[in-house]
Amino acid sequence: METMNSLDVISSLCKRRGFIFHSSEVYGGINGFWDYGPMGCEMKRNIKEDWWRFTVRNREDVAGLDATIIMHPAIWKASGHLDTFSDPMCTCRACKKLMRADQVWDILTEGPIGQSLQALLAEGADIGKLAAWCKGKGQGLAPNLAAVQNADALTAAVEALKAAPEKYATVQSLYTLFAQLADSSPCPYCGGELTEPRPFNLMFKTIVGPVEDPANVAYLRPETAQAIFAQFLNVLATSRQTVPFGIAQMGKSFRNEVTPRNYTFRSREFEQMELEYFIRPDEAVELMFGRVTTMADNPDLSTPQDAWGWEVWHKYWVEQRKAWIQACGLPASSFEEYWQKPDELAHYARACVDILYAFPFGTQELEGIAARSDFDLSQHQKHSGKSMEVFDEALKLAAAKLDDAAKAAFTEKVAADWAAHGKDADAARAFVAKLFEGRFVPHVIEPSAGVDRMMLALLCNAYEEQKLTDEKGKDDSRVVMHFSPRIAPVKVAVFPLVKNKPEVYNKAREVFEHLRRRYAAFWDEGGAIGRRYRRQDEIGTPWCVTVDFQTLDDGTFTVRDRDTMQQERMTLEQLKAKIEDALI
Amino acid sequence: METMNSLDVISSLCKRRGFIFHSSEVYGGINGFWDYGPMGCEMKRNIKEDWWRFTVRNREDVAGLDATIIMHPAIWKASGHLDTFSDPMCTCRACKKLMRADQVWDILTEGPIGQSLQALLAEGADIGKLAAWCKGKGQGLAPNLAAVQNADALTAAVEALKAAPEKYATVQSLYTLFAQLADSSPCPYCGGELTEPRPFNLMFKTIVGPVEDPANVAYLRPETAQAIFAQFLNVLATSRQTVPFGIAQMGKSFRNEVTPRNYTFRSREFEQMELEYFIRPDEAVELMFGRVTTMADNPDLSTPQDAWGWEVWHKYWVEQRKAWIQACGLPASSFEEYWQKPDELAHYARACVDILYAFPFGTQELEGIAARSDFDLSQHQKHSGKSMEVFDEALKLAAAKLDDAAKAAFTEKVAADWAAHGKDADAARAFVAKLFEGRFVPHVIEPSAGVDRMMLALLCNAYEEQKLTDEKGKDDSRVVMHFSPRIAPVKVAVFPLVKNKPEVYNKAREVFEHLRRRYAAFWDEGGAIGRRYRRQDEIGTPWCVTVDFQTLDDGTFTVRDRDTMQQERMTLEQLKAKIEDALI
Repeated sequence: METMNSLDVISSLCKRRGFIFHSSEVYGGINGFWDYGPMGCEMKRNIKEDWWRFTVRNREDVAGLDATIIMHPAIWKASGHLDTFSDPMCTCRACKKLMRADQVWDILTEGPIGQSLQALLAEGADIGKLAAWCKGKGQGLAPNLAAVQNADALTAAVEALKAAPEKYATVQSLYTLFAQLADSSPCPYCGGELTEPRPFNLMFKTIVGPVEDPANVAYLRPETAQAIFAQFLNVLATSRQTVPFGIAQMGKSFRNEVTPRNYTFRSREFEQMELEYFIRPDEAVELMFGRVTTMADNPDLSTPQDAWGWEVWHKYWVEQRKAWIQACGLPASSFEEYWQKPDELAHYARACVDILYAFPFGTQELEGIAARSDFDLSQHQKHSGKSMEVFDEALKLAAAKLDDAAKAAFTEKVAADWAAHGKDADAARAFVAKLFEGRFVPHVIEPSAGVDRMMLALLCNAYEEQKLTDEKGKDDSRVVMHFSPRIAPVKVAVFPLVKNKPEVYNKAREVFEHLRRRYAAFWDEGGAIGRRYRRQDEIGTPWCVTVDFQTLDDGTFTVRDRDTMQQERMTLEQLKAKIEDALI
Repeated sequence: METMNSLDVISSLCKRRGFIFHSSEVYGGINGFWDYGPMGCEMKRNIKEDWWRFTVRNREDVAGLDATIIMHPAIWKASGHLDTFSDPMCTCRACKKLMRADQVWDILTEGPIGQSLQALLAEGADIGKLAAWCKGKGQGLAPNLAAVQNADALTAAVEALKAAPEKYATVQSLYTLFAQLADSSPCPYCGGELTEPRPFNLMFKTIVGPVEDPANVAYLRPETAQAIFAQFLNVLATSRQTVPFGIAQMGKSFRNEVTPRNYTFRSREFEQMELEYFIRPDEAVELMFGRVTTMADNPDLSTPQDAWGWEVWHKYWVEQRKAWIQACGLPASSFEEYWQKPDELAHYARACVDILYAFPFGTQELEGIAARSDFDLSQHQKHSGKSMEVFDEALKLAAAKLDDAAKAAFTEKVAADWAAHGKDADAARAFVAKLFEGRFVPHVIEPSAGVDRMMLALLCNAYEEQKLTDEKGKDDSRVVMHFSPRIAPVKVAVFPLVKNKPEVYNKAREVFEHLRRRYAAFWDEGGAIGRRYRRQDEIGTPWCVTVDFQTLDDGTFTVRDRDTMQQERMTLEQLKAKIEDALI
């Protein structure tokens, strides 16, 4: 059993079997956009439906939302996206190419200068060759490497290389040497002079209404999350929810990536599944229960408890998300938790866990679960001028039981704690005074997943090329997608053993019609049964039913299991029970 | 029983009960964008899910697609949207206001000039008053009505009014008089000079990639349909479908409406459910079956037949769509078919039916079913340079049975027919030659529906304010949403009769937990049972279950019907059977 997970193999199958097509392919495609074909859109629907069931339907503490992609631009000012959601970009003054400042090395390695230096290194980069290369024409080197080409700079380069040849054994190190000598960072395409990096905002911009005026600029949302904060008050007012509770949303988001890459992994248009789960600040929990449950208490994470602090809620959602990912079919061994280090965290974040999956192009983020404090709601409170505080009756009642001395002691404890964390003690006192009234801005835990990334991981994980031996002992092979039945685009395929016997054919149609009313089912009457199995294997159909002459006698048919390729005779009721079991 | 369907009443309920919020409301909103709240997003999901089941899942001849919103701009060139998807817009040179040329009358009637003229007319617009009004300040009249204010023009106006006062009894007629005298169409806001109407394209524009260059302009799709044509070849190659078959897609579309209005009816961001159903050209059908079934044959529309021509296919889809609309809960009496007149049809369209619904703001289009010939695929064939022809084995076999004389006769018959319709006879001959090889560009029937419009119609249709008499004989009332169970956001609510008896409470939880695994269920333990019923009535929950002491004895509970308000005791199995029946 051999597994080939290269991205090319996956994308080729996806194209061939109608999972994923390049958007606008008939017009040469559009970079960073991907369409989901007949099989792909069913699979994507299954992922989304499963997330929604797990996150919204099966819980009483989460409400759904479906907001617009274009929203008021003030939302992106408040969220910080307008000011900071950008990549640093350089332009080459010579060749006019635009590039991400942090990708200069990557471009260098793949581009003509890098390849030329690489060839030089492969030959053994002695001083003579280096000098010749620098002086040579046709290397794609432009004016500002002229410094290297004049005698002094070249001598300096030669000296540097002589002094420590081992330091200049890579393309990057040679390039750095030139850059130092030329006193600038040359363009990796042509060696020309690069501009200083400037921030390029990744939000797609548009104009709402007929007047092209800066006042009418709007953005395609770069994430679904902010709509949840913007509609927090409306959902709170209409959903009969009280903190702790969540608001969930699925939908398209857009990021104008400079270099979309890795198939669907980094696309410009993608779909997210985000939950904002609002909780009490730890101080409110402490006020109510005398103490805050932390992970040091080794709490049982299966059922939420009122006394949990943010740390436990965060870990709870990490575990919930991992459970869902596994239920979709990614084995626990295929992904890992990465806890961001304190210096990697956004300033407002308390903790952030990335769930990493070993994609063929590297181990990369599948989703993230962040504890974002009260940052988002506070920002929207500040920018909209509308209070984002909730009223918490139970908290107010708990506070009312404290006498003045206890209240003062609690206030000063919190003030000291905030001060110890570099926060304003007076702000802490004002915050506690609000707590005594049962009021606070909720904190939030944000599990944020990408539909396309989950789908890509499931495709990579499911793919297998198996070497088989056919009934005549000859070598054979098959491609099989081991999708979990919940996610598989087709649950069951039905074949008549023969096409030209009306009794068998009609019986097969009857079985098919019965099954399709409940499950995504596929009818195939073309070609040998073996070929029909192979077709279903490639789209990951868990079960294939073949109706034959015996079906007419006893109502049983063969059910062939995709993974084991074993066939078993069973009745329709037995098959339905089998499918139901697998789908729950 | 009294039904109030005014839009304000609907939108107020929608806001109050979490169906629909104004997008970005906390920042003052954004015109033409609406968010779906906890109840609204479930209802919208139900509409979409039902459409998908009806259109894709329950059929073997339709494949799904989920394409991107941003596509290659060449698609919009080919489709004609880039050149013709526009409104004529005027700008006022004085006040700089931009307006739709076709809405000048509407603006006039509602604006300050119109109101002032209206007041004048109400007083009886005699010559003296008219002269005073024209000369008066503060009417908002700007320079180019100065012509009216000079003596000659005013005299002319006065003469005109004297000669035929009955002709100038409306705001519009007075305004036209001024316009004629001023020799231009004045701005309805200020009377300033308007520019000539210029086309304003309704597609939202953006830039893909970091370089702001005309070559990188792209558009948010104004309809989902074009992606289906652009991916036609990929779907055809991967889905094992042959003509006749369809490709369906649901998703967001965007139109930069100049004046979004009527609540969610005309929004700038909306969601569509579109099917492109590809059929053989009538000539291919005739070649295969000797004749083409038309509506004159009074065909049975329940099951598609190979010999159907486009006219029957079109009517079939009209009937299919009406069946779906009714299944969603709009009674047949609430909507009507409008067959576009020949002069209303697009030049390529053979027929187009609008399904009109009597919205509170007027009878307006709910969806449309168009017979679009081979226009779309031919356009994309022309613009992409890729053949959009399909190969039809059965057609080729049928043609092969004809001898040369029969082929020649058929060719000339088609050529004569095309010529009679003003089309090129040589093109007809080339087309028939392809048919003989089994090749053609499919024709298409396009049923195109809007999710938001369907939802708005269902909300309007479902709304009722009922006057009731309570058990004490006092007048009472309720608001009830008569949603069909398939569409209702919540299918069943479960209440414990009392909160403080653990046996009853736990039994109710048990019933709830059982039901929620299958259906969208709602738990409510707050307030009197009557109030809990009212809350569910407002969100259209078909059944409310109350668990009481008797439940502990015999397992039965009361099930209260939303529409009849009758209560009936039943077991869990009986309730489930009732729900299942209603959902199928």
